[in-house]
Amino acid sequence: MVVKQGSMRTVGLVGLGLIGGSLGLDLQDLGWQVQGLVHRQLTADRAMQRGLVTRVSTDPSCLADCDLVILALPIPQLVDPDPALVAALPASAVVTDVGSVKGPVLEAWRHRHSRFVASHPMAGTAEAGVEAGLHHLFRGRPWIATPDDATDPQALAEVKALAISLGCQWLTAAATQHDQAVALISHLPVLVSASLLRAVGEERDPGVRELAMTLASSGFADTTRVGGGNPALGVAMASSNTEAVLRGLALYRWSLEQLEQTVLQGNWQQLQVELQRTQQLRPAFLGSTQSISSSA
Amino acid sequence: MVVKQGSMRTVGLVGLGLIGGSLGLDLQDLGWQVQGLVHRQLTADRAMQRGLVTRVSTDPSCLADCDLVILALPIPQLVDPDPALVAALPASAVVTDVGSVKGPVLEAWRHRHSRFVASHPMAGTAEAGVEAGLHHLFRGRPWIATPDDATDPQALAEVKALAISLGCQWLTAAATQHDQAVALISHLPVLVSASLLRAVGEERDPGVRELAMTLASSGFADTTRVGGGNPALGVAMASSNTEAVLRGLALYRWSLEQLEQTVLQGNWQQLQVELQRTQQLRPAFLGSTQSISSSA
Repeated sequence: MVVKQGSMRTVGLVGLGLIGGSLGLDLQDLGWQVQGLVHRQLTADRAMQRGLVTRVSTDPSCLADCDLVILALPIPQLVDPDPALVAALPASAVVTDVGSVKGPVLEAWRHRHSRFVASHPMAGTAEAGVEAGLHHLFRGRPWIATPDDATDPQALAEVKALAISLGCQWLTAAATQHDQAVALISHLPVLVSASLLRAVGEERDPGVRELAMTLASSGFADTTRVGGGNPALGVAMASSNTEAVLRGLALYRWSLEQLEQTVLQGNWQQLQVELQRTQQLRPAFLGSTQSISSSA
Repeated sequence: MVVKQGSMRTVGLVGLGLIGGSLGLDLQDLGWQVQGLVHRQLTADRAMQRGLVTRVSTDPSCLADCDLVILALPIPQLVDPDPALVAALPASAVVTDVGSVKGPVLEAWRHRHSRFVASHPMAGTAEAGVEAGLHHLFRGRPWIATPDDATDPQALAEVKALAISLGCQWLTAAATQHDQAVALISHLPVLVSASLLRAVGEERDPGVRELAMTLASSGFADTTRVGGGNPALGVAMASSNTEAVLRGLALYRWSLEQLEQTVLQGNWQQLQVELQRTQQLRPAFLGSTQSISSSA
């Protein structure tokens, strides 16, 4: 346990789902006082039982003495924040968020708080809610911030120190670049994968459909995993990152059509070249993930 | 070990890669004499060292005393078989194959051997070659045969008994239905998944591309796994099952366009409905796989 010198600093966690709850566990271990803020008393009680926070309340005024506030809320609540929450944030506190889309969040907060830093820890499991938080969720994962000209450099440095203390790999990028990158590697795969389930579900011959269900194995299971995930999350991604998702879909459709052409033309030599290229391309994506994980 | 009563029966295995080698290990355990046939002496020597077979040869005449011959060859060699192999098959033997496409194989063999049974054990790993074979690969997996009017019922019964003795779930279907089903759950996912890698690789902004590589995590890894696999296998699937793959691609493109429309229109309620449907659809595919696995 690392305990800060002098008086303990207080972090406010707004929302205690997977991300907020996991932050609460790790930040207490790192010597922070953790003040939770949630909507419902039932969630507050359970968060205390699980030890996610030092203190918890359903009243935004509980954030008054926080040095740092992390908004661990779903994207719709980040983009259109509760005015009572905004009013309760201390002007001196560093405020950051954990949303997976940064352009609209930065837009919403730029004029709402002078020490706001748009950021995105890239960690997650399939779980959600107050039961989901766990220790060491962030260790070895990227934590990316998307500062603009108006971002307070000292506030940015404080969020960086926090991310590094949690074992994250720290990155910064322009919000538009971040949003396009996550559209490609996170939001687009949901639609690509859901469409595959949808296509098989639309097969007209019931015999073929039933056979497909019986014969599906690990390849189909892997390719459809993210498309069979939380619908609300998929909608939040698409609705908050629409432009980047549509750009990704256009790129994807073009890419699929190129492969379809090789099949239509029976150009197996070209298909071989294409599949060799994708085989060679994939490790570049896994390489980073693996090296990040192994550096934990 | 189950030893057959009376004199031991001999099975011929043509090809000793993942499928052939695994069959050799299990069939010896079940009391069969296993006669391997391979192209290269080096492979023959290694197969003996690994104990994949009782005897092995590079000369097709070695199949002369086989009661059953399993053609564990790549699809191109099943569809356009070596005349020397066809000539060496005993007329009295039951002959079957393990190809993942059944229409063209049935077409190729219908007039080549009167006791041919087109079949497909649905098992596999990412490995290939003489080092890949392993025990119990087939246990709990589907083994599907695609008989037609000309199929010898007694030969079919013998292949069924073999599949069941290996612990497989036995199924039969029309070859066209089989081929459409595997196009949907196995061949189409390769192209869908490869197109995703291809799309991200085609991103013009190098900053976005690099960020995408750094931020890619398990969701992207899963969705792209089969698209980053063996190119030759992908080409063999598409070239031998072209019509069904094209039909699957058309269904998929339509399905993707429907989802893209909801994003274009900002119809988040409809996207929510669609993603709820795919979330509900997926367990029907995994359910079968899991119940087959757990029955092993």
